[in-house]
Amino acid sequence: MTSNKPRLEVCLSPALLHLYDTKGAIVVIIDVFRATSTIAAALHNGASKVIPVATVSECIELGLRMTGSITAGERDGTIAEGLAHGNSPSEYPRRFVENKTLILTTTNGTRLLHMVQDAGTIITGSFLNLGAVCDYLSGQNANVLLACSAWKDRFNLEDTLFAGAVATRLRDQYDINCDSTRAACYLYERSGGNDLISFLRDSSHYKRLAAYGLEADLQYCATPDLHPVLPILKGNELVVL
Amino acid sequence: MTSNKPRLEVCLSPALLHLYDTKGAIVVIIDVFRATSTIAAALHNGASKVIPVATVSECIELGLRMTGSITAGERDGTIAEGLAHGNSPSEYPRRFVENKTLILTTTNGTRLLHMVQDAGTIITGSFLNLGAVCDYLSGQNANVLLACSAWKDRFNLEDTLFAGAVATRLRDQYDINCDSTRAACYLYERSGGNDLISFLRDSSHYKRLAAYGLEADLQYCATPDLHPVLPILKGNELVVL
Repeated sequence: MTSNKPRLEVCLSPALLHLYDTKGAIVVIIDVFRATSTIAAALHNGASKVIPVATVSECIELGLRMTGSITAGERDGTIAEGLAHGNSPSEYPRRFVENKTLILTTTNGTRLLHMVQDAGTIITGSFLNLGAVCDYLSGQNANVLLACSAWKDRFNLEDTLFAGAVATRLRDQYDINCDSTRAACYLYERSGGNDLISFLRDSSHYKRLAAYGLEADLQYCATPDLHPVLPILKGNELVVL
Repeated sequence: MTSNKPRLEVCLSPALLHLYDTKGAIVVIIDVFRATSTIAAALHNGASKVIPVATVSECIELGLRMTGSITAGERDGTIAEGLAHGNSPSEYPRRFVENKTLILTTTNGTRLLHMVQDAGTIITGSFLNLGAVCDYLSGQNANVLLACSAWKDRFNLEDTLFAGAVATRLRDQYDINCDSTRAACYLYERSGGNDLISFLRDSSHYKRLAAYGLEADLQYCATPDLHPVLPILKGNELVVL
């Protein structure tokens, strides 16, 4: 039995990305703690664009060349040397970020974004824009890869949980025959879907970031649909679709 | 808070193996469908040893040199050309396998076994010898890596489910701070633990092998403790501990 529906798969780590055919596909980059959450917040609060860059030095350099830009990024939970701001979605309220360009470097999410080369469309997803991602995907007719940023290539619960939330909502519209997707859906089912942060408290990344005093940030990132916006990559810039 | 307990982690795919420190650790190779199930069955039924080899040609060559040996292996669900037997645990009853050497090549499991170089101890695990694996691990004081063979590097449900079964039983005795392990335990919890095959029917590998008519084999592989034996690697041979 073959299906006429497009395929939906979940990639659990950038180190597994080569196993998936992303040619012409819609790739959803997921980095719940916290790059793609911050991207949703900044764009929803009126940033004109977000430019994801791989390194701190690239971030500094680009910031010097662009007026009205904000350089941001953390390493080990604190603002990286030479940058002005951190990687917290709550740092980017409208009064600060409106009409500005956010140049953002993070450990995992921006790296993955640059790894996907041949996709048809690249968007970013987080719980903050869960509904917007699902609404967009349900109107498409292309294969979808939900790509988890993981933590230094290690599987993480929060990105997989988000992938499970998306796959659970879209399971009737896509052809799913991928154990990663099944596992992501089971995890989402196990979380109950309502109190995500309670489920995520027992995860490596939560514990690591909570030790830096970032609990409020993590709670924020686990709140569905606070920033209903769809970030899409155009050239090297993320803008609102 | 540091713990004095040894560490237990789960590696979801051979493509992630480089992320784990296996030096001196006990590595449990897991290939439920079906290499490590067949290994447990053959050794429990009296095979003197199992020699895992990477390729069909290596299997043929070694078989010619060793009297009293059985060459076995499948590719795409049928016995590989030049080999005498397949990769089904039910093919190796005592009357056939006793005191013989089984030379076995499989797609995923034997490959992973050869990838782990610096481990202190390598054992193999499957539901058929779940209790034996847990009994062995609960008496040790070394870090443990539960290493899933996956399917051509892709995450699979059955190996992860087995890892979850082991981690669930040993969680009080080991220090667990690894999201892969947490996910594996959630999956095992979701399966209910009793009717594993019902849970696994909705998995990629089950569907692929069932299409070759191997349902009875898969049911067999999902039966806990049919072959309570502990295969351990000595040199290049798996023997009973």
